[in-house]
Amino acid sequence: MPNPVAPGVYLIGAGPGAADLITVRGARVLAQADIVFYDALIDLSMLEWCAGTKLVPVGKRCGAHSSSQYFINKQLVDATSKHLVVVRLKGGDPLIFGRAQEEIDALEQAGVHYEIVPGITTALAASAQLKQPPTSRELSRTLTLTTLPGRCAHPDHKTAIYYMARDQLSEIAQVLLAEGYPASTPVCLMESVSLPTERSFACTLDELILGDVQHHFLDRQPVVVMIGEVYRKKLQTLNPLIQPQINFNVLQAAS
Amino acid sequence: MPNPVAPGVYLIGAGPGAADLITVRGARVLAQADIVFYDALIDLSMLEWCAGTKLVPVGKRCGAHSSSQYFINKQLVDATSKHLVVVRLKGGDPLIFGRAQEEIDALEQAGVHYEIVPGITTALAASAQLKQPPTSRELSRTLTLTTLPGRCAHPDHKTAIYYMARDQLSEIAQVLLAEGYPASTPVCLMESVSLPTERSFACTLDELILGDVQHHFLDRQPVVVMIGEVYRKKLQTLNPLIQPQINFNVLQAAS
Repeated sequence: MPNPVAPGVYLIGAGPGAADLITVRGARVLAQADIVFYDALIDLSMLEWCAGTKLVPVGKRCGAHSSSQYFINKQLVDATSKHLVVVRLKGGDPLIFGRAQEEIDALEQAGVHYEIVPGITTALAASAQLKQPPTSRELSRTLTLTTLPGRCAHPDHKTAIYYMARDQLSEIAQVLLAEGYPASTPVCLMESVSLPTERSFACTLDELILGDVQHHFLDRQPVVVMIGEVYRKKLQTLNPLIQPQINFNVLQAAS
Repeated sequence: MPNPVAPGVYLIGAGPGAADLITVRGARVLAQADIVFYDALIDLSMLEWCAGTKLVPVGKRCGAHSSSQYFINKQLVDATSKHLVVVRLKGGDPLIFGRAQEEIDALEQAGVHYEIVPGITTALAASAQLKQPPTSRELSRTLTLTTLPGRCAHPDHKTAIYYMARDQLSEIAQVLLAEGYPASTPVCLMESVSLPTERSFACTLDELILGDVQHHFLDRQPVVVMIGEVYRKKLQTLNPLIQPQINFNVLQAAS
């Protein structure tokens, strides 16, 4: 991409959270942006790339409602009449579960020049942080990314990574067990991927179904859920999501 | 990541090809690297980030053989005795179909400090270039990434993106049609994603099965194949992969 960047709208993926996990292209466009519309999932340290730029927070956590999406689309198009370089900064990759289609349609309809700058999607950032490839030649040669609690995994029991799934953990486990995934299938959960507050846990699929695990997570932080045989080693190295039950009978017998 | 970077080995994703689609973190580590082992899929413009660094080409196009993978592992570990910051630069994301597990195992066994810097994987870069999200709320809420010609798609006919698939196009189409994908399912193919030589084509699944399409592609260039209903509009806007058959009967009748 030439320097300076062409006038228009740029849909830029901010990456998972850490400011230096944006692409070089994304950072360069941000530095030249006249106005930046950023959504709630963006870590604010990311905005340091935008020196002297007008910053406009938009969107809502866990998906914007249609009305506000319509308003965002309108803001993007309207901004091009006052500003040369308009940025829409989205968490992760702009095209992965980011509702970009509506913005793209609005920009095309308005005849505005626009470009898309990809970003590191959360699943890949979480894999890098775990140091665990989601596929392997022996165990899984497919990776499914999804937001869908039902019927979202591969029939051959390959790796599945769920976005925005923290409120559906029990349902996901139920569906996968019903589809024939072994009860012992490893599950890794990671909160606030790549940020200083990042935490990760592991359990098995039958443990995931068991109980209320919401108390493990901080309010409003996104959680990515990785499920598959490739994660078996992590059951030993990560904190368990489910605390071992204290066996009171044994304690009483010992006292 | 602090500046300067800690001594150790860095597995860095170079992204799809364009030099500015590496992450800021990746570019910073490269600039401080003492030695960089890069593979054949890396566009050489990427190496401009490594001022004065020792550059060592390794690996082979379309996957290294076990023997050379063993040699790469050994080179990485051995390099840490002579160099502070050792980089293994891989195309796309280092953990997506990149055989990183063997390198990770070797580094862990040697007790070497190592980190993984994610990269833009080809599927997401291709989506950005196409300006087409691979999922949508209405048509597909799952995306499968795979290298496997057989049984790699989702039973509900969601979006599938195939890596390293240029020699298996007919087989992929056969399998998906047998699984019940409609013959009219749109297919997009993109060569040399994000490079100046990038080209893309579209066809339908039944056209993909028809014929020898290898002559469309340049030798040794990787091709990513995107299949799913979300790509229907691209059938109008991209070059057709299959040239329309000239109807000689019509021509004769007209002459």
